[in-house]
Amino acid sequence: MRKVKKKSQIPIYVQLQEIIQEMIDNEELQAHDPIPTEQAFCQYHDVSRMTVRSAIMTLVNEGVLYREQGKGTFVAPKKPHYRMSGLKGLTEAMEELGYEVSAEIQSFSYTECSKKIANIIGINEDEKAIEIRRLRYVDDEIYALETIWMNPLQYPNLTEEKLEAAPLYDIFRETYGFYPAYTRQIVEPVRLNDVEKNAFNLSGEPLGLLFERTTYTDDDQVIEYTKSVYRIDKHQFEMYLEV
Amino acid sequence: MRKVKKKSQIPIYVQLQEIIQEMIDNEELQAHDPIPTEQAFCQYHDVSRMTVRSAIMTLVNEGVLYREQGKGTFVAPKKPHYRMSGLKGLTEAMEELGYEVSAEIQSFSYTECSKKIANIIGINEDEKAIEIRRLRYVDDEIYALETIWMNPLQYPNLTEEKLEAAPLYDIFRETYGFYPAYTRQIVEPVRLNDVEKNAFNLSGEPLGLLFERTTYTDDDQVIEYTKSVYRIDKHQFEMYLEV
Repeated sequence: MRKVKKKSQIPIYVQLQEIIQEMIDNEELQAHDPIPTEQAFCQYHDVSRMTVRSAIMTLVNEGVLYREQGKGTFVAPKKPHYRMSGLKGLTEAMEELGYEVSAEIQSFSYTECSKKIANIIGINEDEKAIEIRRLRYVDDEIYALETIWMNPLQYPNLTEEKLEAAPLYDIFRETYGFYPAYTRQIVEPVRLNDVEKNAFNLSGEPLGLLFERTTYTDDDQVIEYTKSVYRIDKHQFEMYLEV
Repeated sequence: MRKVKKKSQIPIYVQLQEIIQEMIDNEELQAHDPIPTEQAFCQYHDVSRMTVRSAIMTLVNEGVLYREQGKGTFVAPKKPHYRMSGLKGLTEAMEELGYEVSAEIQSFSYTECSKKIANIIGINEDEKAIEIRRLRYVDDEIYALETIWMNPLQYPNLTEEKLEAAPLYDIFRETYGFYPAYTRQIVEPVRLNDVEKNAFNLSGEPLGLLFERTTYTDDDQVIEYTKSVYRIDKHQFEMYLEV
């Protein structure tokens, strides 16, 4: 293990994070290996317990390390990458990697939405939107919380039963004749709130990624607006961009 | 302003965040408007000061609100979206939006790198990599901290002066004959560390986005590996994905 540089402009806890990350990258520490004790780090680098804890907690929150109550801190297994390219959603990307992906509808309702969302999906402010809340599962584990808003005039006679029976994009195409052509997705880092932490069964102060997606047909008609919060401790998001 | 639902499963501070965000989306609160005082929120919703603070601080950290010492908390102006599509980097996307983008080289060196990076850029573990650290500016404000690693055998006679004289992708193409064809980018949420916070002139506990980019030629040769940390309080990242 290389030592921290006390005179560096880079704070000690950041250096320590980098050193631990390097030991993992270099395979000195492998998946499920215990990392050295806090005390060992303190003595070796001559730094405070606070500093060591701060470095370790950051790596735990990032999903690089994991803790087991009463046992210690271990190296997390490498995260699979989900490659997003073309219109292909993360779900399809995960399925291609051999994961079983499913959705559980938590609520289906006609409700008021914010002015921003009303504008996007093309309803008047006094009209109600279709709002669908779903949990997304990969191999029996929740990986995302999703809320979808749609214009009810575009989707007459849509029911929760119909949504449960087929993938959403299939319903767009086959029942309503809307062919998704492109999406615009805004990506933002977020601190997971208590609802999200409970759903993902996470503690501490984990981060996540929020994707706000608007899907369009080839004549630029909006057919859905979706906000999804993804956990990042189990997988990574990869974008593949071509010339 | 709608009221929080005390019996909801959604924590009060999350509801409060949503309510403030809605007031902004609905244009009840506009850019640079002061938001109601903490006390006003406490009284109106009958909730504790802690709860109100927690909702407001989250929105400050996300760049939705901003604080001015001794003056109060205000609505931040809407963030421009940088659209990433094709190989086009964020820099080009920003330039298209009319921003002036520049880079300042902080260091140019031949140094050891981690085994992971050595593998990616194709050097042996005992060989040194070219490491370039840069600050990226848009209109005189730092928007990203970037570290680039390259294989010295691919870039003979590269100097800091040459790097300062032309955009990196131009040097790839014109001096070394490497034509970038596609990139793979991993995107991750991060807590900004003290170095990053200082560079961006931010306080509190702001989040950022880390992009790890590997650039390839059309015969799948790696020509660079880059880690960039972006602030997210001033702009958003939009991906445009087609069928």
